[in-house]
Amino acid sequence: MVTHYTLSVGPFKRGFHLITNDVFKVVSQWPDHGVFQLFIQHTSAGICINEHADPAVRVDFELFFDRLAPEHLPGIQHNDEGPDDMPAHIKSVLSGSTVSIPIIDGRPALGTWQGIFLCEFRTNATRRKLIISIIE
Amino acid sequence: MVTHYTLSVGPFKRGFHLITNDVFKVVSQWPDHGVFQLFIQHTSAGICINEHADPAVRVDFELFFDRLAPEHLPGIQHNDEGPDDMPAHIKSVLSGSTVSIPIIDGRPALGTWQGIFLCEFRTNATRRKLIISIIE
Amino acid sequence: MVTHYTLSVGPFKRGFHLITNDVFKVVSQWPDHGVFQLFIQHTSAGICINEHADPAVRVDFELFFDRLAPEHLPGIQHNDEGPDDMPAHIKSVLSGSTVSIPIIDGRPALGTWQGIFLCEFRTNATRRKLIISIIE
Repeated sequence: MVTHYTLSVGPFKRGFHLITNDVFKVVSQWPDHGVFQLFIQHTSAGICINEHADPAVRVDFELFFDRLAPEHLPGIQHNDEGPDDMPAHIKSVLSGSTVSIPIIDGRPALGTWQGIFLCEFRTNATRRKLIISIIE
Repeated sequence: MVTHYTLSVGPFKRGFHLITNDVFKVVSQWPDHGVFQLFIQHTSAGICINEHADPAVRVDFELFFDRLAPEHLPGIQHNDEGPDDMPAHIKSVLSGSTVSIPIIDGRPALGTWQGIFLCEFRTNATRRKLIISIIE
Repeated sequence: MVTHYTLSVGPFKRGFHLITNDVFKVVSQWPDHGVFQLFIQHTSAGICINEHADPAVRVDFELFFDRLAPEHLPGIQHNDEGPDDMPAHIKSVLSGSTVSIPIIDGRPALGTWQGIFLCEFRTNATRRKLIISIIE
């Protein structure tokens, strides 16, 4: 059986943002055993799991991704929405569009240091739509 | 309940290719609520979700990935099948081997701009085998 | 229905390690049709699928990832646990924290050359906890 929940988050400024609690609180009923999946309906923002405790981690991620896929790369054609457009698409593939977490004993079985990041890659972003699938 | 469908696509030339419709049309019955998963049985091609509307996006992705993991990197040992061999393996990890999409109201709930890409990283590729899992 | 198994592997030295058999042997009962998901409860190690036959592939991956996200990058702040700390977080997002494989005819439907890698990004690592979800 699969149950869905939809939510929207943000708008966030460009960068990596911790959304673990925002996402989990939408789920009104957790099965004892199952799988939690999160999906982002966008191509210029991503979602991923990483270290939630130190905010510097999220700042460092932004810095690294900006260097890995900088604006104004020679040869890049797609810039309909500005110089951050194509880099945002590239970064969203590298970070991913799905997060999947086992549900054990009625709770998502994240590791001690794991949280869910919303990776906003647009400079002027709007709200982002997410879909939760609870598989049981 | 999980239902599987298998398909093969291509052969494609090296680059990013939109396969959304090719994949979806294989599913003969969509549940009202569920999860669609796509899996690629290869290690030198990937699958991912990104912007389907502007073909330039796919050209830009090819350019970016070729620069990120170029051929003839110093120190690379695995080149049994040519200089594009190991870069293809690297790119396939970065793009991913699974795509997962919620199924809501009997349809895959892709965002407005989202499509599924087959990322072909070999210069002389053969057909690629994909497996669809419908979880309901 | 979802069934879970937990296991721990390692400690591994820094690098990419083949864990396919270690993981599969934990599953005591495979359904005829289903989905196998593997999840890593850590943020400085990753899991992914790639070429299992040639050990040089795993050495090349280590070399590539070390160059892509090297230690001592200017501007990086998070180094509580040493210079390999933040690069490990970055690499774990790029490699991924989940692997998903269809189960067909009672077996995981990996392609001929596919194996599961544990990507250890810490220089002095401890054991790593993994969770398997069998969806049927």
